Amino acid sequence: LSQHTTEVASSPRARITRADLLESFSRVRQCSEDICKPLATEDYVVQPAEDVSPPKWHLAHTTWFFEQVVLDRFEANYRPFHSQYFFLFNSYYQTFGDRWERPMRGSLSRPTVADIGEYRAAIDQRMREFIQRVDEEHWPAARDLITLGLHHEQQHQELMMTDIKYILAISPLNPAYVESAYSPAKSIPEAEFIRFSGGVFEMGTDDNDGFCYDNETPRHRVFVKDFQLMNRLVTCGEFLEFMKDGGYEAPTLWLSDGWDWKIRTGRRKPLFWESVDGVWHIMTLTGLRPVDPDEPVCHVTYYEAAAYARWRGKRLPTEAEWELAATTVKASPEHGNLFEDANYHPIPCQPDSGTSGMYQLFGDVWEWTGSAYLAYPGYKQETGALGEYNGKFMSNQMVLRGGSCATARDHIRVTYRNFFHCDKDWQFTGVRLADDT
Amino acid sequence: LSQHTTEVASSPRARITRADLLESFSRVRQCSEDICKPLATEDYVVQPAEDVSPPKWHLAHTTWFFEQVVLDRFEANYRPFHSQYFFLFNSYYQTFGDRWERPMRGSLSRPTVADIGEYRAAIDQRMREFIQRVDEEHWPAARDLITLGLHHEQQHQELMMTDIKYILAISPLNPAYVESAYSPAKSIPEAEFIRFSGGVFEMGTDDNDGFCYDNETPRHRVFVKDFQLMNRLVTCGEFLEFMKDGGYEAPTLWLSDGWDWKIRTGRRKPLFWESVDGVWHIMTLTGLRPVDPDEPVCHVTYYEAAAYARWRGKRLPTEAEWELAATTVKASPEHGNLFEDANYHPIPCQPDSGTSGMYQLFGDVWEWTGSAYLAYPGYKQETGALGEYNGKFMSNQMVLRGGSCATARDHIRVTYRNFFHCDKDWQFTGVRLADDT
Amino acid sequence: LSQHTTEVASSPRARITRADLLESFSRVRQCSEDICKPLATEDYVVQPAEDVSPPKWHLAHTTWFFEQVVLDRFEANYRPFHSQYFFLFNSYYQTFGDRWERPMRGSLSRPTVADIGEYRAAIDQRMREFIQRVDEEHWPAARDLITLGLHHEQQHQELMMTDIKYILAISPLNPAYVESAYSPAKSIPEAEFIRFSGGVFEMGTDDNDGFCYDNETPRHRVFVKDFQLMNRLVTCGEFLEFMKDGGYEAPTLWLSDGWDWKIRTGRRKPLFWESVDGVWHIMTLTGLRPVDPDEPVCHVTYYEAAAYARWRGKRLPTEAEWELAATTVKASPEHGNLFEDANYHPIPCQPDSGTSGMYQLFGDVWEWTGSAYLAYPGYKQETGALGEYNGKFMSNQMVLRGGSCATARDHIRVTYRNFFHCDKDWQFTGVRLADDT
Amino acid sequence: LSQHTTEVASSPRARITRADLLESFSRVRQCSEDICKPLATEDYVVQPAEDVSPPKWHLAHTTWFFEQVVLDRFEANYRPFHSQYFFLFNSYYQTFGDRWERPMRGSLSRPTVADIGEYRAAIDQRMREFIQRVDEEHWPAARDLITLGLHHEQQHQELMMTDIKYILAISPLNPAYVESAYSPAKSIPEAEFIRFSGGVFEMGTDDNDGFCYDNETPRHRVFVKDFQLMNRLVTCGEFLEFMKDGGYEAPTLWLSDGWDWKIRTGRRKPLFWESVDGVWHIMTLTGLRPVDPDEPVCHVTYYEAAAYARWRGKRLPTEAEWELAATTVKASPEHGNLFEDANYHPIPCQPDSGTSGMYQLFGDVWEWTGSAYLAYPGYKQETGALGEYNGKFMSNQMVLRGGSCATARDHIRVTYRNFFHCDKDWQFTGVRLADDT
Repeated sequence: LSQHTTEVASSPRARITRADLLESFSRVRQCSEDICKPLATEDYVVQPAEDVSPPKWHLAHTTWFFEQVVLDRFEANYRPFHSQYFFLFNSYYQTFGDRWERPMRGSLSRPTVADIGEYRAAIDQRMREFIQRVDEEHWPAARDLITLGLHHEQQHQELMMTDIKYILAISPLNPAYVESAYSPAKSIPEAEFIRFSGGVFEMGTDDNDGFCYDNETPRHRVFVKDFQLMNRLVTCGEFLEFMKDGGYEAPTLWLSDGWDWKIRTGRRKPLFWESVDGVWHIMTLTGLRPVDPDEPVCHVTYYEAAAYARWRGKRLPTEAEWELAATTVKASPEHGNLFEDANYHPIPCQPDSGTSGMYQLFGDVWEWTGSAYLAYPGYKQETGALGEYNGKFMSNQMVLRGGSCATARDHIRVTYRNFFHCDKDWQFTGVRLADDT
Repeated sequence: LSQHTTEVASSPRARITRADLLESFSRVRQCSEDICKPLATEDYVVQPAEDVSPPKWHLAHTTWFFEQVVLDRFEANYRPFHSQYFFLFNSYYQTFGDRWERPMRGSLSRPTVADIGEYRAAIDQRMREFIQRVDEEHWPAARDLITLGLHHEQQHQELMMTDIKYILAISPLNPAYVESAYSPAKSIPEAEFIRFSGGVFEMGTDDNDGFCYDNETPRHRVFVKDFQLMNRLVTCGEFLEFMKDGGYEAPTLWLSDGWDWKIRTGRRKPLFWESVDGVWHIMTLTGLRPVDPDEPVCHVTYYEAAAYARWRGKRLPTEAEWELAATTVKASPEHGNLFEDANYHPIPCQPDSGTSGMYQLFGDVWEWTGSAYLAYPGYKQETGALGEYNGKFMSNQMVLRGGSCATARDHIRVTYRNFFHCDKDWQFTGVRLADDT
Repeated sequence: LSQHTTEVASSPRARITRADLLESFSRVRQCSEDICKPLATEDYVVQPAEDVSPPKWHLAHTTWFFEQVVLDRFEANYRPFHSQYFFLFNSYYQTFGDRWERPMRGSLSRPTVADIGEYRAAIDQRMREFIQRVDEEHWPAARDLITLGLHHEQQHQELMMTDIKYILAISPLNPAYVESAYSPAKSIPEAEFIRFSGGVFEMGTDDNDGFCYDNETPRHRVFVKDFQLMNRLVTCGEFLEFMKDGGYEAPTLWLSDGWDWKIRTGRRKPLFWESVDGVWHIMTLTGLRPVDPDEPVCHVTYYEAAAYARWRGKRLPTEAEWELAATTVKASPEHGNLFEDANYHPIPCQPDSGTSGMYQLFGDVWEWTGSAYLAYPGYKQETGALGEYNGKFMSNQMVLRGGSCATARDHIRVTYRNFFHCDKDWQFTGVRLADDT
Repeated sequence: LSQHTTEVASSPRARITRADLLESFSRVRQCSEDICKPLATEDYVVQPAEDVSPPKWHLAHTTWFFEQVVLDRFEANYRPFHSQYFFLFNSYYQTFGDRWERPMRGSLSRPTVADIGEYRAAIDQRMREFIQRVDEEHWPAARDLITLGLHHEQQHQELMMTDIKYILAISPLNPAYVESAYSPAKSIPEAEFIRFSGGVFEMGTDDNDGFCYDNETPRHRVFVKDFQLMNRLVTCGEFLEFMKDGGYEAPTLWLSDGWDWKIRTGRRKPLFWESVDGVWHIMTLTGLRPVDPDEPVCHVTYYEAAAYARWRGKRLPTEAEWELAATTVKASPEHGNLFEDANYHPIPCQPDSGTSGMYQLFGDVWEWTGSAYLAYPGYKQETGALGEYNGKFMSNQMVLRGGSCATARDHIRVTYRNFFHCDKDWQFTGVRLADDT
């Protein structure tokens, strides 16, 4: 459980002070609770699909991380807050032993939301004391683990947003997370394909640059052919053309596993779309409303993204292409529709929101790439719990890039690799097309 | 939808006044809410197994019955309380169209508990007005349907108790529904087999005797051989002997479907038993405690009941035998551990609790019989929704008799037929043995 | 493993000589092989549904019965024919230990058909020697077990016919078992309901009357109300009216479990019916041909039979009613379309084929009754393997009466109880309606 | 359906004459039939697992390819051999419409093996005539499709070998495909890691070089870091160390999906291993025999390969590394234990069988790589049926390299990409480790 064995004194990480960390800790922890403020108690409890965890579970699990991974490791004779919580709130860490099984998270009414509030408060208090008290010898390792825990909590904040969305969206009552009138876009840029020059490109990062996940390391060289990338995200209007052209009924457009998925699920439209009196509507965190043809299509699986691309005679970008393009145009999370912008949904592309004619690289939707989620050359999977954080998921998943409207601005970066199985659709996932030159 | 087409003016039913009905209505409706008082909001929401409905669903569905089956039928141009509630809270009535699917009841956080409280209050108000206002022409039919609705709600009150038990019992935190110290029995009567004379016996009832379900009708003759019935229920101590003798591992004791069920589920003990430091404990509504060898065994499936009986060289009684015996000894719900006794669990047999040496016929646990749940000779299944109440379940289920510790005293009677599939165990179900002479 | 512990010297069973048994043995054993003569080698091997066993498995399993249940029991130091055959060809007898799992019977190419032919020949030879050689002390028990083994083989002969039918019927090539031109009926009797007087009726049999299965014993009294029974089987034409009237789409006609089955399977017609250019055809052992409206409907589940009866405002008979009626009219297997008549399919009712105006009681199709398959009063389930023959199936199944066109004439009798789960349709199962008076 | 639109007159493909093609056609077609010679008729029929097709299906499907893809396309008014065979023997080509569903291939006894023999003979005859008769205009396209059909048939020959193995191996009778005594190896080379220099490497091929599948194209540049590759395959003895060290019980060694697979299947050893009296045996095409510690481990899934590699502190090679290494050492199918060597199983590494100290690159077992099966940069998926040949499988599968003991020598090459889902184990799949430098 030692993520970073060497320390470069001048690295950004080494410059983090206890005060810095206390500030980050308070801010990130508070954010999770702020996210839940609009919820009814009942909304914290349910798990309408296996992937969708109850918000109260997220609140507890992110707390568990600090308790089991930090406090229980560093504090001598640590006495857990509750004898069952290590068991109840471990997610998937085999290193920490048995756990309450995932599909049953929504079966537990106890501990209650209030109980979990007490758990959070108690661990927050212990953590603040720990940050101030830990000795210099253990400080670097503790600091790094706590930093990881905060990024972990930010990941769960995004999951909370998408899980809350799912929980509210399946109700025939169509409750909104927050009420907000939708104002459609005036106009969006025409779709264009921008050409990028390839060659040997250095992608990924090294972990002494600042915080990153181990799956982004090491920085390494790849050879990339010249390619073209669409200047913005694919819109709902463009996706509707695919639907109207029979895209969901044309097996030769689909991957074999994708077609099987389509038949099995009966899917004929993106998740959260429904037809109301013949008009396509979309359920969002601000309620049910008609689809805006100019907004980015989202909640599509890899299979739908790939079928759409094939129908258009294009393809999905590789993650190297995405990273090369974003690096080339100096794309930055400063721009983009992210969590802090409080739109809670992708918004139509506006020319001033991007960089150099390449729009929406950050925020709005996670962009499916055509790259499998695998180790970078030279990647070292940690032993112990940290090895379970990313490395054990390196099969059957695809990489997504760029963050979404539910991603925190200081959580995303150009080397960030998100990953999901091809049939997942409940995240804010969308499409940008690529082409050869 | 007309359960009772003829009316005998002097029948017990005909003597029910509007004031009587208002009183019953208020009492039964209040009881459902009282049952939920000890719950946390979170407890109302979850569905940890398909059979276990969320308490808030029960509260809404019993209300739906009055709204859809009574108000929407009798009131001209009835405006439903909410446009979606007919859809959301129909249980299984095909007559009333589509419904929210049963396995997903625990996926809905909305409407909230408070919303359903408002729904109950509003329908209660409308119902009270309706009872006072309905004209004489429609009064008999309305009265009978409302009476049915109250019995329906009492059935759901028993289900609420067992569902709440399941919801609390699966939590590793072992929360109690109500705290109560367990005081074990001093001694219980020895098991004896009491002999009854058979012959042509009239069983069942006719619906002009007072309220009954249609599945108890018509009264009809059956030929019963002389038989013997155990004087009390099988105890946990007796069932433990079966377990210790390898009963769960001896396939020839089991029905073929039962053995398949055992293999599939890995079952080796009654539901809610768990071994704590080598001592068998049982989770009850008053918390987790050691098994008392003298208490009746409960939460066993038909398969376990039948295997136990075969191991003992006995058999389960038929429902005719049970009814003949109960009639012979004049057993009555006046005696017996029922819902109003607030034990919330079967209790050890005490000699003064029964009649003529036959104990525990009413209350404690539903007694599995060896009779399939089928129509009585001459049974007429209603058309419409009432035909769905009982008749459509007449396949693959077994009859249980006598009520349980969760059954209301004025809900049970000697002709009452409960029924469940052979693999159900979450009700208070137990065993009384029978034998030939 | 001692089915019959007492022996009445003058009973029909006691009068069976060794020569009689040798003759029966040869005749029954040969019949199994004759049934397979029209098959291609490939037809012996496949298992297109879990219930449908490969014909070569039937040939081996019926041989296994004689080897394991008779020879291995009576012969000292018996050396099995093959070290694996006890494992491979045990069907469901827990008493005899592990077995090759049923859903995988069609996965085994070895032993081959020829290997199994050698197995049959070798065991036949050993059995013939054993019958001649067994000493007087063991003769009664051996005789009874061998007799049981022959009836067991006759049951499997019926299963072989239905399994072969299924195997051939699922092929788009529509191969016939035997070629035979279909000549439709000239006319059939009008449907009439014949009235029978009830009262206390003695049903079942005692096993010293001649061979019977233990589930037919003991003879016992039942009270039967007066009732009416249809004079012949329900026809395809009559069932088509149900179909045309939307019977498959009307949930209130169906049992709840039946409707679930219908939705799950998408069923909208009896098994083996298919529409060819808009005309209903039926796949039979003599090939695919148009449905004859006058032929008995067959290959319907209990659910379909019950829905049809409800649609007609009638019901299915109880098994007591069926047996009382058949006894009253002195129905006999002498009449009726049975296996030896080589029609391999139910045929339209002809007035001269029945007794006293009640037609088709024996043969054509097994008639679903509304009675669950349960123990008769006083029934004693054997211990050991014989207890597994019938008793362990006494849950979740319904009784069928009267034999079918695939039942051997000397195998069926008025007390014979066949039983299947409600969703089974691959046997020759049909419908006769009953009504109250 | 036009795989190769341009033709370079001097390319290897263009030099194939009609006589050449007739010779190849006869040879390849004959080989399929030779493979089946040792089978009993019953062996042709069964499908003991969904992935395992009946040999008679392979014989028919490879014939269907020539009939539907070649004859039906090029011959005017082509009359199919049988009206149902296009439906019955299409494997997965959506382009050609509906097909008999894959999991039911083993449910069809008809057409028989002899029927399929007639089908093969008839189509062979039509194909030979067609090859001689097709006009010059259509010759190039026809030649290329027929060549594809022959490679397609060679792929199915390998599948036939592995399917036959599975069919025989699941029988408790342990029948051998061919009898052959096993002579263990004298000694094998020590495991060593050979260092290779990376850089920009050209991998893949262009289709005018001779036959290749479209997934091997286009030749393209990749950047490869320096790496090390094990000089031979991992042996059973080495894999046993992993087993003895608790490898199957250590979740942190496993990919998350792999651990789920392990729990779901209960896997604790490679496929076809079984313990006989405490000694590990392996079922092979030549029968059951003790495991030889020096033979290559085979029939392992990607999950097992990856867990083994992690346990050893190594990793699997990428396909670029494999291809670079094989190219560097000039590995060739001339060497290696392939189908024609008739060992029907991987054999222990012998120093003289490889090249330059890198052994077993071709033959023995397919080597799992750590590369997902995805499109090469610039890959163009064909439209129509040819687009279904390879392109539609580009999700959720991993690449395997090098061919196996069941691969034809003229079918494999250094650029050949085989692919399977991570949980597949019934092919001859094994492990070679890689490492960073």
